[in-house]
Amino acid sequence: MGLSTRHLLGIKDLNEADLQLIFETADSFKDVINRPIKKVPSLRDVTIANIFFENSTRTRLSFELAERRLSADVVNFAASSSSVSKGETLIDTVNNILAMKVDMVVMRHPYAGAGVFLSKHINAQIVNAGDGAHEHPTQALLDAFSIREKYGDVAGKKVVIVGDILHSRVALSNILCLKQLGAEVMVCGPTTLIPKYIGSLGVKVEHNLIKALNWCDVANMLRIQLERQDIKYFPSLREYTMLYGLNKQILDSLDKEITIMHPGPINRGVEITSDVADSKQSIILDQVENGVAIRMAVLFLLAGQA
Amino acid sequence: MGLSTRHLLGIKDLNEADLQLIFETADSFKDVINRPIKKVPSLRDVTIANIFFENSTRTRLSFELAERRLSADVVNFAASSSSVSKGETLIDTVNNILAMKVDMVVMRHPYAGAGVFLSKHINAQIVNAGDGAHEHPTQALLDAFSIREKYGDVAGKKVVIVGDILHSRVALSNILCLKQLGAEVMVCGPTTLIPKYIGSLGVKVEHNLIKALNWCDVANMLRIQLERQDIKYFPSLREYTMLYGLNKQILDSLDKEITIMHPGPINRGVEITSDVADSKQSIILDQVENGVAIRMAVLFLLAGQA
Amino acid sequence: MGLSTRHLLGIKDLNEADLQLIFETADSFKDVINRPIKKVPSLRDVTIANIFFENSTRTRLSFELAERRLSADVVNFAASSSSVSKGETLIDTVNNILAMKVDMVVMRHPYAGAGVFLSKHINAQIVNAGDGAHEHPTQALLDAFSIREKYGDVAGKKVVIVGDILHSRVALSNILCLKQLGAEVMVCGPTTLIPKYIGSLGVKVEHNLIKALNWCDVANMLRIQLERQDIKYFPSLREYTMLYGLNKQILDSLDKEITIMHPGPINRGVEITSDVADSKQSIILDQVENGVAIRMAVLFLLAGQA
Repeated sequence: MGLSTRHLLGIKDLNEADLQLIFETADSFKDVINRPIKKVPSLRDVTIANIFFENSTRTRLSFELAERRLSADVVNFAASSSSVSKGETLIDTVNNILAMKVDMVVMRHPYAGAGVFLSKHINAQIVNAGDGAHEHPTQALLDAFSIREKYGDVAGKKVVIVGDILHSRVALSNILCLKQLGAEVMVCGPTTLIPKYIGSLGVKVEHNLIKALNWCDVANMLRIQLERQDIKYFPSLREYTMLYGLNKQILDSLDKEITIMHPGPINRGVEITSDVADSKQSIILDQVENGVAIRMAVLFLLAGQA
Repeated sequence: MGLSTRHLLGIKDLNEADLQLIFETADSFKDVINRPIKKVPSLRDVTIANIFFENSTRTRLSFELAERRLSADVVNFAASSSSVSKGETLIDTVNNILAMKVDMVVMRHPYAGAGVFLSKHINAQIVNAGDGAHEHPTQALLDAFSIREKYGDVAGKKVVIVGDILHSRVALSNILCLKQLGAEVMVCGPTTLIPKYIGSLGVKVEHNLIKALNWCDVANMLRIQLERQDIKYFPSLREYTMLYGLNKQILDSLDKEITIMHPGPINRGVEITSDVADSKQSIILDQVENGVAIRMAVLFLLAGQA
Repeated sequence: MGLSTRHLLGIKDLNEADLQLIFETADSFKDVINRPIKKVPSLRDVTIANIFFENSTRTRLSFELAERRLSADVVNFAASSSSVSKGETLIDTVNNILAMKVDMVVMRHPYAGAGVFLSKHINAQIVNAGDGAHEHPTQALLDAFSIREKYGDVAGKKVVIVGDILHSRVALSNILCLKQLGAEVMVCGPTTLIPKYIGSLGVKVEHNLIKALNWCDVANMLRIQLERQDIKYFPSLREYTMLYGLNKQILDSLDKEITIMHPGPINRGVEITSDVADSKQSIILDQVENGVAIRMAVLFLLAGQA
């Protein structure tokens, strides 16, 4: 009665029973973190290393709080200031940390597949905290968990993911997770930001934002990565906002009340305006809160099958 | 029987009873940190985030030790390497951290008023660990506490603050705190570094260092910020040291034995010479020690009115 | 029945009884970290500051884990982002940290002798975690401990240290430690990388790698520091690898089976090839594991004579 996998490398390794088990476990941890005493002793004597080869204070903080709420010992390793810059290989870096008796590794890495590669060469359990444009499984889990919390169930819900689908690990993990749970999924964005293979994932494509929003129950508005604005084929930021930015006027003009999600950090005024982000239809801060509960659930369940 | 305020944004929010309550609480915590067992369980199950939008290892370390001595859970957030650089607003950054069930925020920010602004938009208690050239209340509290420790009382003492009053949050918070406690306060420095509004604070102004020192019981020698040496109207560093640098010869020539304070880090040979910094009249390291006790008191008292 | 020294500044301060006491203590801590419950309460209520004036994630992590396994309170101080860059002296920085009631200091510093200098001016116990090209005593201790673990004893063993002896704190500390324990020591490398004073340490010198390897029981292959490749008198990296790089072909051609050590991080393909690093003769990961046990032993024994 555990997960069907020893690592969490991507959503594609999880079956539906895994997803339900993670959600049910997260339900009880969400109760825990809303109590006055927010800790459980579950992972006492488990040491977890957060190895971040890319800066991500937000995700690192969510994992660290999840680990502390479980009473794990936590060590943080920011790879930028480390021996990595001295020419050491990924496997050597991680094996060195493991030789110090670390039980689990949470890793963020700029290259797609880094976690999968590592899992074949080391002897500890790995949680992928984002690998390049590939997968970000705990983000997809917390997103699906937030939809389930809002509607009772994910199955049958219509979810549109709006934005830069091509470069987004959040989009790919979300599509896999939502499909697995029986949701209908659409992606919406300019042609240049929708990957060619998207049809093979069983996903609808829509280039008109209003049509997409009128179709959906939930809109997940991805962050436009301002730091990529030098890419030539990209629509300009102003064009993007005009065509795909969501404002209150659009929201109020829709046929029904939809739910707004965003993985953060928000560029207010770019992909969504402030009145949308802060509206009652937005569950953006619930997503953040659920992130801690989901990560507690994943770490707890994986530790159970060490 | 608690503080009259829910946050510690500035000294100006504290009345005299608040100051006395903080000092008496700090008295007992100073006993704690000088015992072999330096911890109390007071803030067990309270999570505190230290959010530093400016580097300040010294202040961050003092807060972190205060939090650990109180058994709080501590998370550190250095904003330089974070989503802030990705265009996120201050409120979004802090709300995200709070959604992860953080109870209190200790914040250092380069802009004056950042803490006040934040307190109107978020739902947690805030301790201002320095906001631009505005306030640095825990520094002023530890300074006043150190004078009280030395003389038994702050009321009636004559304190001169020497240096760059214009750009100093330490100076402003110190003036407000010392006046509230009944001390006489003078500022001393070149005309270009004394703000025009200083008279309205009920403070004497003196441009001659020797006269100022002969007047005072306590001299708080502010740090000259070497990194600001490109500012045009500034006296040169050499001129500053000649006119306002305190050396042993001057100290020994005074009519009475005065007490020397410095908020650190010291530029030895600039604002004070080494023999002054290390003399028996210096209480600079007592200030550092008292910083931990004062911060424990502030965090403890604020937590009591969450 | 404790160490003959109050600090661990260098191997040269330790006598043979000290070394044996450290090894025996490390034996029991190695048992601890291989238990399911990896912690002991030995240093509960001891606060240790890791002060790193040079980046070294690997060494810092090993010390931090050692401290946590001993239940110490740990604060990390990365000097790069601190008041050091604001012109503060080393003594002031450390005295400030100590004024916050820190009991022990673990310090990495780029200048040789920084720890010795500091120990004369401050009132806490210091562990040198590497000072310039001078000493790195815990590395030498873990290296000797790993040889002892492999062979039962260090006395009488033949150890060759291969590489850049001139710039290496690891080499100097290793020589002093191994000689103290009765090993025979040889250094091997190009003339330009062997210091002139080496003979005075009672060490053999050999410029031919094959001869050195045929002589020894253990070869400690130092890391070539790629970041120093602009130094003029250095052999080029390609020349170095041709003359002093160890590959499997060489290893298999030797008269007997020798043990391979490396202080890490490894430049695979430069000083050793991957098949050597990962061979059964390599004890490189044992060294890393033993590092935590040795550092626990050192901290525990020093705390006993505070």
